[in-house]
Amino acid sequence: MIWGTKVRLTVFGESHGPAIGAVLEGLPAGEVLDRDAVAAQMARRAPGRDRSATPRKETDEPEILSGLLGDRTTGAPLCAVIRNAGAHSGDYDGLKSVPRPGHADYTARVRYGGYNDVRGGGIFSGRLTAPLVFAGAVCRQILKRRGVSIGAHVLSVHGVSDGPFDPVKISGPLLDELSSRYFPTVSPEAEQKMRAGIESARQRGDSVGGVVECAAAGVPAGAGGPLSDGAESVFASLLFGIPACKGVEFGAGFAAAELFGSENNDPFYFDETGTVRTRTNRAGGILGGITTGMPVVFRAAFKPTPSIALPQESVDFSTGTSARLVVRGRHDPCIVPRAVPAVEAAAALALINLL
Amino acid sequence: MIWGTKVRLTVFGESHGPAIGAVLEGLPAGEVLDRDAVAAQMARRAPGRDRSATPRKETDEPEILSGLLGDRTTGAPLCAVIRNAGAHSGDYDGLKSVPRPGHADYTARVRYGGYNDVRGGGIFSGRLTAPLVFAGAVCRQILKRRGVSIGAHVLSVHGVSDGPFDPVKISGPLLDELSSRYFPTVSPEAEQKMRAGIESARQRGDSVGGVVECAAAGVPAGAGGPLSDGAESVFASLLFGIPACKGVEFGAGFAAAELFGSENNDPFYFDETGTVRTRTNRAGGILGGITTGMPVVFRAAFKPTPSIALPQESVDFSTGTSARLVVRGRHDPCIVPRAVPAVEAAAALALINLL
Amino acid sequence: MIWGTKVRLTVFGESHGPAIGAVLEGLPAGEVLDRDAVAAQMARRAPGRDRSATPRKETDEPEILSGLLGDRTTGAPLCAVIRNAGAHSGDYDGLKSVPRPGHADYTARVRYGGYNDVRGGGIFSGRLTAPLVFAGAVCRQILKRRGVSIGAHVLSVHGVSDGPFDPVKISGPLLDELSSRYFPTVSPEAEQKMRAGIESARQRGDSVGGVVECAAAGVPAGAGGPLSDGAESVFASLLFGIPACKGVEFGAGFAAAELFGSENNDPFYFDETGTVRTRTNRAGGILGGITTGMPVVFRAAFKPTPSIALPQESVDFSTGTSARLVVRGRHDPCIVPRAVPAVEAAAALALINLL
Amino acid sequence: MIWGTKVRLTVFGESHGPAIGAVLEGLPAGEVLDRDAVAAQMARRAPGRDRSATPRKETDEPEILSGLLGDRTTGAPLCAVIRNAGAHSGDYDGLKSVPRPGHADYTARVRYGGYNDVRGGGIFSGRLTAPLVFAGAVCRQILKRRGVSIGAHVLSVHGVSDGPFDPVKISGPLLDELSSRYFPTVSPEAEQKMRAGIESARQRGDSVGGVVECAAAGVPAGAGGPLSDGAESVFASLLFGIPACKGVEFGAGFAAAELFGSENNDPFYFDETGTVRTRTNRAGGILGGITTGMPVVFRAAFKPTPSIALPQESVDFSTGTSARLVVRGRHDPCIVPRAVPAVEAAAALALINLL
Repeated sequence: MIWGTKVRLTVFGESHGPAIGAVLEGLPAGEVLDRDAVAAQMARRAPGRDRSATPRKETDEPEILSGLLGDRTTGAPLCAVIRNAGAHSGDYDGLKSVPRPGHADYTARVRYGGYNDVRGGGIFSGRLTAPLVFAGAVCRQILKRRGVSIGAHVLSVHGVSDGPFDPVKISGPLLDELSSRYFPTVSPEAEQKMRAGIESARQRGDSVGGVVECAAAGVPAGAGGPLSDGAESVFASLLFGIPACKGVEFGAGFAAAELFGSENNDPFYFDETGTVRTRTNRAGGILGGITTGMPVVFRAAFKPTPSIALPQESVDFSTGTSARLVVRGRHDPCIVPRAVPAVEAAAALALINLL
Repeated sequence: MIWGTKVRLTVFGESHGPAIGAVLEGLPAGEVLDRDAVAAQMARRAPGRDRSATPRKETDEPEILSGLLGDRTTGAPLCAVIRNAGAHSGDYDGLKSVPRPGHADYTARVRYGGYNDVRGGGIFSGRLTAPLVFAGAVCRQILKRRGVSIGAHVLSVHGVSDGPFDPVKISGPLLDELSSRYFPTVSPEAEQKMRAGIESARQRGDSVGGVVECAAAGVPAGAGGPLSDGAESVFASLLFGIPACKGVEFGAGFAAAELFGSENNDPFYFDETGTVRTRTNRAGGILGGITTGMPVVFRAAFKPTPSIALPQESVDFSTGTSARLVVRGRHDPCIVPRAVPAVEAAAALALINLL
Repeated sequence: MIWGTKVRLTVFGESHGPAIGAVLEGLPAGEVLDRDAVAAQMARRAPGRDRSATPRKETDEPEILSGLLGDRTTGAPLCAVIRNAGAHSGDYDGLKSVPRPGHADYTARVRYGGYNDVRGGGIFSGRLTAPLVFAGAVCRQILKRRGVSIGAHVLSVHGVSDGPFDPVKISGPLLDELSSRYFPTVSPEAEQKMRAGIESARQRGDSVGGVVECAAAGVPAGAGGPLSDGAESVFASLLFGIPACKGVEFGAGFAAAELFGSENNDPFYFDETGTVRTRTNRAGGILGGITTGMPVVFRAAFKPTPSIALPQESVDFSTGTSARLVVRGRHDPCIVPRAVPAVEAAAALALINLL
Repeated sequence: MIWGTKVRLTVFGESHGPAIGAVLEGLPAGEVLDRDAVAAQMARRAPGRDRSATPRKETDEPEILSGLLGDRTTGAPLCAVIRNAGAHSGDYDGLKSVPRPGHADYTARVRYGGYNDVRGGGIFSGRLTAPLVFAGAVCRQILKRRGVSIGAHVLSVHGVSDGPFDPVKISGPLLDELSSRYFPTVSPEAEQKMRAGIESARQRGDSVGGVVECAAAGVPAGAGGPLSDGAESVFASLLFGIPACKGVEFGAGFAAAELFGSENNDPFYFDETGTVRTRTNRAGGILGGITTGMPVVFRAAFKPTPSIALPQESVDFSTGTSARLVVRGRHDPCIVPRAVPAVEAAAALALINLL
């Protein structure tokens, strides 16, 4: 729950408790914070944006308690609190004895001896990405001032693909544009097909997953280090903290395992300004755990939402017998679009720690 | 270079310096250390095991300097040093000005202002996995005494697949057997085909990559935590520290993004002993960042060895012009079999920190 | 601002910002929290307790935002927020250009490039001990259930001494009693004389300092470790974080430097239960950084409050000249009594991390 | 055993094991390392320097295994190993059952379940300051190049005082001179009297303690931070890791508790170069945990060597009865002179982390 070395993020809160929030420590002093830009990122993550998403209303207005004077950071830890509201705790009454498949209900029960707050998933709720998105929204403004743009798109949902980024040509303006949208895809057709697939799953009481592809442009060469200090480790340790993330790959990633070295190696050249660049970017902008100066490109796979309306097989701890579970309440049939700002936020936090 | 919270690993050394090594802190006192078992793991990682691998001879005998009295841990930091020998530093003379594509030569030059030890890749060398394998060999003995077995196989090399583990039925004895072998595959035919593919690449002066699949059996439910304290984050932060690792996925991983929730959710049931288990194990033994008690299963993708004999395009910093590079010296055409014990070692370190 | 390894404390807030607070991570789940006992500790630290103390009213009611369900910890981070109120920010208007001697005004200006919140001392305010006292109040309840009592007294104020604890016989009940009082001394006369000295300093527009002596009874032997993992390091790193603390010593401390080894060594013996104890306790319950099972005893020295009414020499950054400063507002002429619960809280956090 | 945030020190080894050593991580690349200067610091700490000190001969030659190429740091972790030699392990045979008063024998037995290496004190030996002195010797060279000088003197031994530093006027050249000597005092008479006192204690089979006062000149203003990020916390957490250190104070320290605020506050003024300075330096160069630009001054109290020839009362675990212990072997009757380079080394490590 505490992450980072230079800029450290502490996340707290439970889905149906009084509030959730974040403390960001180690930010430089004197940085201007655009609260509207923060709110825009929060809104991308908030539920209730469209028909296919969850109807639960959350305002998700962060109240900043410290670290800001006027519109500038003071250098003290920046704490923001987001109140929880509109929760229907009654929906979760049975979960204490019958764990939902694919959820943390069972594992949290073992881990915390049954004392964890099971309502809404407690600290395992996707709602806990809100503090992460807040923190990322702060960090990306600081990075932007240093020329770094971060953006992501929904690369695929249940087999429908948007087509991957061009890892050499991906540019700041395109990333900025994507990072202002709710369901960002490069191709409008891909978005339509994905939405149709999600709606179809919803109608059947089922859910779908997908892959988010994220890039950062303007990252200078030389950030990172060897072994577990490497950029991949820094990114991945935070990305896997986003609920439902089950895979992370950089550059060519798993596909690199299928290539010859002569295909996978990115040839170096001097561009017209004398800067070293690579003709291809299968490394995803990272060699030896250190940034190359080419765009950083990675993908994160998200499993389908485990909360589905279809009946499922589970166990009942109160009776010690098997149980048939029907999850009530209304749930996102696909969390991938809302995972996009969380992935970008994780990238912002990783980069501000690396730079 | 320092990793872990409860059992912490510090790795040091450069490929062609006097020695490399590891300090393991936080081990329980009084644990018996079987040095032969450690040596067996070191031998799996050492080069020169077969024709298709590198002919450079390394004895890789770890000298334990502290933390051990007789054959038992004292509770003090355990430091092991492995001397470097047999290096042909002359092979690397030109690399200071002409960086090898796919290597850390260029990025390390930027990161360290040109002061890094470029010989043999310095601290970015695959040789630095030797201290990791040492540390893992120590930890896995302690885990084994608590009923945890760790093993991996070469899942694929350049498109030839061994077939994935059965994530429900994978057992300790099979994992123990695999973890005693140099080129572990479940299917002997797969090994033969993979070796043929590697040899073919070697003859063309090229290289190939592959995927390692690793499992741990006997891991109790309840280890890990939410967000960045999650088991996936702990594993991934160390796995991505293994040179050439570009992707990590748990359970169904990227394939989960293609499934429906009703397919991906693992149904719970009580087994005959009253223990909660899941009928499938698409979660890879981890839900909400916490172990489920089912086998932990993950895959790590390794890119093809960047050192290839074929001529490559690069830049020359001494002249400021483009350059054609031919990497001399003999290099592994495929590091995947030698990455297997490193992946298992990372798993052992991750698990001892989680448990 | 983040401290600890097993139970970690993150403190945030500035004296005149919206709120201050704490996040406590790593607490065991299922621990009952007595909120009245927490409030009692908060009240000991709060200003306005008596004539000789500051008249600024602070309610200091912590709102718990997470980590608690009913009256039990959930295992998730426990966040508490304390609203700031009643601040007279106008009192600090001139401080931005004329730093107060003995305060962090000048050093914070350099450290944060002038962007720090100077009002009320910002993050350097003694008010930031409120989150520490909150955190300590939580931890001491958990420790108490394991038999550990923590208490402190005002050992001295400006030369008036209460007489030191008997480091061998100091008992849980006495410590519990002391830790329920606002101006705890063993001798009522000492308290009266100290209060008289404080009042006398106040009337002259001056301030005084003092020493807090703290003990913990019931600490089992075997907690801590060598070198910087030692108990003294753990305690001291947090104690020196309390504003105005300029010295820390354990057991005989500086006086040990004046003793012969034959005097300072504490002889071991078996008590009637077969437990190893020492006849004296000059070690303050810690040998080699590890607890001995005897009471842990240490002292922390606090400098006199730097905010005094007497005119002082300073500099004016707006004019670049020397300046005569008269600090307005009403300030504690002695913060030592209010430092007592902060010292006890630091001890509680140190012990919960060591045990 | 792992300390630091930016430059991290890992110490390993046991007194009578094969070797002790240190890993320093996070050093800047390209720094020239003067090995003779390192050896000079190691020699100050090594035993056998004069009649009054221990006759055990230790060469204490550090072998650098990594992080150095030629005479420059590479940016990779710098590991140095110091072989143990000349130990008479037989001297410690009885200690396993009869713990020495004032030593870690008993507490380590509890902490490590009896598996710790008791020979020579194992990891609790004063010998473990050798890696610290090595690390400090590296860091002080880097600091020196940035204008920071560190030096200490024996302020007192068993009541004989050298007189404190002038905390305002203490200068780099004096500190440099002191840090080149074995038994540094400002007054030659003080040294003579101290040596006489030590010799007298030695002849009686007893030992004495003392206080080391250390200063750093040339430290710029603005290093450190609030609460537990404060400079005092950083220094103290490492100083208390030096065996036998039982007290640490900064500036006026415990004496500040006896002063009025009007006496203790250091008035600010602009010097002729327009730099802010203070007329006095009771703060010891630190306000609010942040350096003021004035010399940093602190004192560390060391208890008398617990190993004395006089018979002592202890317990015998093999018989469960009380025991009379006579410590054999030859031991320093006063470790204070040899603690001086360790204190300076801790200061160097603290400062390189703060700057």
